[in-house]
Amino acid sequence: MEVYLDNNATTMVDPEVYKAMEPFFCTIYGNPNSLHKFGAGTHPKMVEALDYLYAGINAADEDDIIITANATESNNAVLKGIWVDNILNGNKNHIITSEVEHPSITAVCKFLETQGVSVTYLPVNEDGVLEASSVKEFIKEDTALVSIMWANNETGKLFPIREIGAICKEAGVAFHTDATQAIGKVPVDVQDCNVDYLSFSAHKFHGPKGVGGLYVKAKKALTPLLHGGEQMGGHRAGTVDVPSMVGMGLAMHLATKPEALAFENTEVKRLRDKLENAILEIPETIVIGGKENRTPNTTLISIRGVEGESMLWDMNQKTIGASTGSACASEDLEANPVMNAFGSDSELAHTGVRFSLSRFTTEEQIDYAIEVVKNAVNRLRNISSSYAYTPKNHESQL
Amino acid sequence: MEVYLDNNATTMVDPEVYKAMEPFFCTIYGNPNSLHKFGAGTHPKMVEALDYLYAGINAADEDDIIITANATESNNAVLKGIWVDNILNGNKNHIITSEVEHPSITAVCKFLETQGVSVTYLPVNEDGVLEASSVKEFIKEDTALVSIMWANNETGKLFPIREIGAICKEAGVAFHTDATQAIGKVPVDVQDCNVDYLSFSAHKFHGPKGVGGLYVKAKKALTPLLHGGEQMGGHRAGTVDVPSMVGMGLAMHLATKPEALAFENTEVKRLRDKLENAILEIPETIVIGGKENRTPNTTLISIRGVEGESMLWDMNQKTIGASTGSACASEDLEANPVMNAFGSDSELAHTGVRFSLSRFTTEEQIDYAIEVVKNAVNRLRNISSSYAYTPKNHESQL
Repeated sequence: MEVYLDNNATTMVDPEVYKAMEPFFCTIYGNPNSLHKFGAGTHPKMVEALDYLYAGINAADEDDIIITANATESNNAVLKGIWVDNILNGNKNHIITSEVEHPSITAVCKFLETQGVSVTYLPVNEDGVLEASSVKEFIKEDTALVSIMWANNETGKLFPIREIGAICKEAGVAFHTDATQAIGKVPVDVQDCNVDYLSFSAHKFHGPKGVGGLYVKAKKALTPLLHGGEQMGGHRAGTVDVPSMVGMGLAMHLATKPEALAFENTEVKRLRDKLENAILEIPETIVIGGKENRTPNTTLISIRGVEGESMLWDMNQKTIGASTGSACASEDLEANPVMNAFGSDSELAHTGVRFSLSRFTTEEQIDYAIEVVKNAVNRLRNISSSYAYTPKNHESQL
Repeated sequence: MEVYLDNNATTMVDPEVYKAMEPFFCTIYGNPNSLHKFGAGTHPKMVEALDYLYAGINAADEDDIIITANATESNNAVLKGIWVDNILNGNKNHIITSEVEHPSITAVCKFLETQGVSVTYLPVNEDGVLEASSVKEFIKEDTALVSIMWANNETGKLFPIREIGAICKEAGVAFHTDATQAIGKVPVDVQDCNVDYLSFSAHKFHGPKGVGGLYVKAKKALTPLLHGGEQMGGHRAGTVDVPSMVGMGLAMHLATKPEALAFENTEVKRLRDKLENAILEIPETIVIGGKENRTPNTTLISIRGVEGESMLWDMNQKTIGASTGSACASEDLEANPVMNAFGSDSELAHTGVRFSLSRFTTEEQIDYAIEVVKNAVNRLRNISSSYAYTPKNHESQL
């Protein structure tokens, strides 16, 4: 049985999404900016896709949603746009972010620091959550941007976006959130949360790879990251990738319609909890960051005495895909300092395994995964030099 | 009969390319950076794609080919990388380009001018070609980059890339070329031409939209446009769009293998010439830039007294797709000053129609297009206020 439990790294394209994309490769292939029917034939489904995207995050008609290559591009566009407009050519010089952002935020911040920008990296608390009050504390006269993720990719922990949005609005500071791990898992409402900029990637919610989005509140347009043609109202040049845009739109709809979010927070959550609780029956295991206030599909578990990478290897042999929560070997090259940010010891940092489910995960797959995980832990603890053997372990070797 | 003669705007995905992409949407969908089989399963075809890309432009093993979203991103990455590394943080301040580049070059240059960068826009000669000697003339002590397209999108005219490459090498100035309109039409050899950076877009050679490439000569790496994860050796962050990369690789192979380039320069050229010569039989028509030294698939024709947009409309009614060569209404929003750069009169600038063929264009389609074009010219000249009626025109009205 093949069991894919690494949906925070990427997801399968929903076959329904794929079906919607298919005509735009070899049949309706015109350039949407061409004046002829080959171009114009792409328009109805592109408009429908935009409608789905606006609805999915509750954007207002006057706001922009820009189609990008992925959330990494969206994140770079916001941070570098702010840099050019408000720092290089303005009178600001400070950005606030967290210690546990995705590398497409932190690596841009590190680059901006080399250009003289001051960056505050807020720590998370013992539950792995950023406290909104810390944002308020660090906003200064010259703060140009606050960029805080909606949900953490490793733990699934949800950050207090509504509170942070209110703080930024009151302070008159632009607020960006990377919602890549939140879309399709929890409700995301840009108006309710006073978000100015929001990034997402289609391949995290059963859309295709190579396409993402950037929400920009009305009148908050920045110098584009991609200059060129007048696509996206001049905000992002380059021929629009029509099949991917159509796919992303439908994927957004399928992931964010009320019954889909309900399913995620009942059935997907139930299976995640079943897997998690079964693993927690094993002695000396903990859920990193705790069980509260998480995306319903994710669990990051530390299993004492078992290297995360060794677990992945054993599971891979049984055709189960998951990822480590450690900084040294990670899916998506998302080396994430989340463990260090917790202030956890180095053993914990090497024993985290992240399981991330999706609406395509089945009960049979979870039952199989539980069995494989238990056997793997048993085997690996038996050969572990750092784990103290219990009599029970020895018995199982006989 | 549907006839698509706008292949310089975008192309149909080759069904063989599409077939190669298909498994990577819903079956082999893992993140290539994941440690498990779902991720590793993507690797063989990704490696094959890279091999095809390297072979297609004769890149050396030690050089880099970075997968991007499109040539617009590749162009932005080079110009802004040079800006950050050699101008903002260096002692250079000058870029040389041409007046007829794609907007993804000129719009970046216009932006860089707002940041204090000095840009020289070289004019083209009466044949629409940039003369290599003019590059040499304008290189200064503080020139950071020369960026000249390989082939013009409107006229198909080929620029003297080998000569420019030699001049830049001798002067010790970095050389970038946007080869978007050259790949698959003429041989493109980065080593032979001393190219440091080269951009291309898959959807111009029967690959998918939303994916392109950036060739970077060994040891010429720049600050990335997309910071984040360590994908592409840290040169371009973001989860790799596996199906698109696989599609682009195969599309490159199918477009640049010797027999494909030979077909382009015999059969595609023959059909282009047939169409062009038939239109030139109509009085007061000219090929803009002349017939010499062009890509074999393109012709930009001015038909006196006939607005380009009106021609497009008439042809569209007969399900033929082409584009205007004018600056006011253009495919791909590629508003291109090529007409003005020729120093041509404003009438010429509004009467250009560009036909761009592909290896999928058939003889029957060209015969049909000739008939439609002739009828359209007849009709439009008869109702034209600017075109002097000839007795023959009046006869046809009876």
